[in-house]
Amino acid sequence: MIEETINQGMLAIDQYMEEVVGSQVEVLQDASIHIVTSGGKRLRPKMALLAYLAAGGQQLQEVIGLAAAVELVHTATLVHDDINDHSLTRRGKATVHARWGRTFALLTGDYMFAKVYEMMAPYGNPYNEIMSQAAVRLVEGETLQAAAAKSGDMDRETYKQIIGLKTASLFEASARMGAYLATKDQSVVNALADYAYNLGLTFQIVDDILDIIGDPETMGKPVGTDLTQGRGVMAVQNGEAFVSGDGVAATAVADDPLQAMMARLRESGAVEIARLQAREMGERARAALADVPSSPARDELEDLIDMVLDRDR
Amino acid sequence: MIEETINQGMLAIDQYMEEVVGSQVEVLQDASIHIVTSGGKRLRPKMALLAYLAAGGQQLQEVIGLAAAVELVHTATLVHDDINDHSLTRRGKATVHARWGRTFALLTGDYMFAKVYEMMAPYGNPYNEIMSQAAVRLVEGETLQAAAAKSGDMDRETYKQIIGLKTASLFEASARMGAYLATKDQSVVNALADYAYNLGLTFQIVDDILDIIGDPETMGKPVGTDLTQGRGVMAVQNGEAFVSGDGVAATAVADDPLQAMMARLRESGAVEIARLQAREMGERARAALADVPSSPARDELEDLIDMVLDRDR
Repeated sequence: MIEETINQGMLAIDQYMEEVVGSQVEVLQDASIHIVTSGGKRLRPKMALLAYLAAGGQQLQEVIGLAAAVELVHTATLVHDDINDHSLTRRGKATVHARWGRTFALLTGDYMFAKVYEMMAPYGNPYNEIMSQAAVRLVEGETLQAAAAKSGDMDRETYKQIIGLKTASLFEASARMGAYLATKDQSVVNALADYAYNLGLTFQIVDDILDIIGDPETMGKPVGTDLTQGRGVMAVQNGEAFVSGDGVAATAVADDPLQAMMARLRESGAVEIARLQAREMGERARAALADVPSSPARDELEDLIDMVLDRDR
Repeated sequence: MIEETINQGMLAIDQYMEEVVGSQVEVLQDASIHIVTSGGKRLRPKMALLAYLAAGGQQLQEVIGLAAAVELVHTATLVHDDINDHSLTRRGKATVHARWGRTFALLTGDYMFAKVYEMMAPYGNPYNEIMSQAAVRLVEGETLQAAAAKSGDMDRETYKQIIGLKTASLFEASARMGAYLATKDQSVVNALADYAYNLGLTFQIVDDILDIIGDPETMGKPVGTDLTQGRGVMAVQNGEAFVSGDGVAATAVADDPLQAMMARLRESGAVEIARLQAREMGERARAALADVPSSPARDELEDLIDMVLDRDR
């Protein structure tokens, strides 16, 4: 029953995204559809959808646009990230940058950002404020990450700030908007937003771990990208910081070839410490759900925590 | 009296832009302020301001945010354009790309787009729809331009479509939003929007002419950029198309060195034809003002047509 509703909603979100990126300019439409239809976990729109349902929402259709807009913000940043990271594959397919070149990739990202703004306009406030603030934070987080990678100055606090801004903020905004559509009860809205923020942190730490220990075939993209990009060893370095109190791993990047570095990290125990942190954030997400009335949708949100913690791709 | 009001308004817009790009992330703030304070003609925010006044607006403060948002959209696209064009100077200063590198330039543009969205949120609709549609068109116009440059397929119709989308749409949106803040009389709003759209076309044709014949020192940036970027000879080719019916000039770019090409274009008479087209668009802008009640602000709008036509930078 709930699974069917979720599947229906997620399908509608996918369809809406494909429709909305239609353009009189062929390359924008082609490149947008290429990235939009290349899969992805769709966790952010799922946050909006489940938060809406858990907050008592009954008209699935009203949350579809919001959820699709959130995923398009995320997708636009992926297109721009791949330019900055020189990434050639994403989700097992060529990146927009690899296939259409840098100029069109840059413009495709801009196009999607502009489309999001168009999609959001009818919702009015507070939705536009929540979404735009999350978009600002996302860019701030990505910039902090690039700056930290450049300076080699990645400590535990910076890492936490980065993942809060670049990932957790959009998770939070998604759940907050979805919940607020369904209820004006701020304790429920805030609980769902708090859940989603912590789930976003959990997700990002696990993502950074998978960049070190993941299997490239399962992942559908090269692993070690964060390492080769000199972006620091994110979650793992963060784990080491727990042990050693400073960022040993980051300096090692310059001396060791990638494979050796990855092996060393896998063996160092830092990964396990990062995993513990992910679990801690996951438990915070779980605790936040206490203020949400019990429902099949809330059960799904709880299950999602374990799926995020246990995923291998 | 009107000059004083305009100066006050334009100063407030500049101050607001500098304030609004403030960020916890230093490089975003520094790079944004660098480009925001590097001058520029501020024609788009002036459209909003003068349209507001010409439509009877009395509370200058209410149009400042809109006008600043429009200029920031434009500024964000300049930052991204300079990445794609490898431009090193803009308005006589280093581009964000030249000074902070590609990664931060890309992120600074994204940051400004996100900030615009945040600035616009409190205005609600129809403002958010007007602005977001203009942003979509702007990106579509830039993409068409890049695609036409790549394929060498720049004819008169494509040129017109490009300048309508990439330049005139934002001029139009600016005037439409400013006017609508002041009056709900749609004939006045539409007349001012129509004026601004045609002034935008006029401005872009003159801009493309100046890229061919302008003096680099007066312009504060290198001329011939559009030529070297293989973007076609825009306005001038457009002029030739009037005479010869096809785009002779575009193919010549590949064979001739830049200086020879520019000289040939200057001597071909094509520039004069492009100028005639600019004048025609200017006259359409003037005609649109007939439906706007006469006022000092309307006089300023009329004077602006000649300033745009006669400018040498």
